[in-house]
Amino acid sequence: MSWLDEVRWDEKGLVTAIAQDARSQRVLMVAHMDREALALTAATGIAHYWSRSRRKLWRKGEESGHQQAVSELRLDCDGDVILLQIEQAGGIACHTGRESCLFRKLVDDEWQITDTVLQDPATIYRQGGGR
Amino acid sequence: MSWLDEVRWDEKGLVTAIAQDARSQRVLMVAHMDREALALTAATGIAHYWSRSRRKLWRKGEESGHQQAVSELRLDCDGDVILLQIEQAGGIACHTGRESCLFRKLVDDEWQITDTVLQDPATIYRQGGGR
Repeated sequence: MSWLDEVRWDEKGLVTAIAQDARSQRVLMVAHMDREALALTAATGIAHYWSRSRRKLWRKGEESGHQQAVSELRLDCDGDVILLQIEQAGGIACHTGRESCLFRKLVDDEWQITDTVLQDPATIYRQGGGR
Repeated sequence: MSWLDEVRWDEKGLVTAIAQDARSQRVLMVAHMDREALALTAATGIAHYWSRSRRKLWRKGEESGHQQAVSELRLDCDGDVILLQIEQAGGIACHTGRESCLFRKLVDDEWQITDTVLQDPATIYRQGGGR
């Protein structure tokens, strides 16, 4: 049995994937992978995901250049979560131009933005919404 | 508008929740929250989740004693992921008796178990499958 068969793919054939900065251990983003994306990630050492909004395989950084070199892949007890240890090119994982997608913190019943925009998204992507 | 309305609940009224050890920064588990679980988590400072398998609100540690004190809540750019910084009582987050649910690492096309069982699950739970 392939290691890919031990992943518990959901009804859409996807698994949740968390990218964590291998050095700082900050959680940078959460996305999804299909079987092809996970297989390619393992084979190439570069993070690939399945874009649910664009419904296609997505090599992170294919447009922005912000690709992710993967040093470790982990699977959780239920088999439905993948954790990636990554090195983030450009130091920007989020499509808003911030280091991390987790840039809002709950303070006094409000989501406060804690991270600055490191690069204007308009200069990162040729088209809107790309990643 | 309540901060709870800024969360993008999925079609089942759930959001993905990641618990990260506030000190070590290790990712310990990934679960789901409904609106009530998230509101209770924020109000009490103790992690509450929605158990998809048991279809009920679940205060983590209610049976095992392994509760999670929450020091920070974050929301991602898409609004569909919550990140919790926690202190894990007993040092065990996983129902298998391990520190983390992410105890399998991909090595040479195999998921290798990297963590030891710290406590026999049979002594953690009165009934099977509980958390």
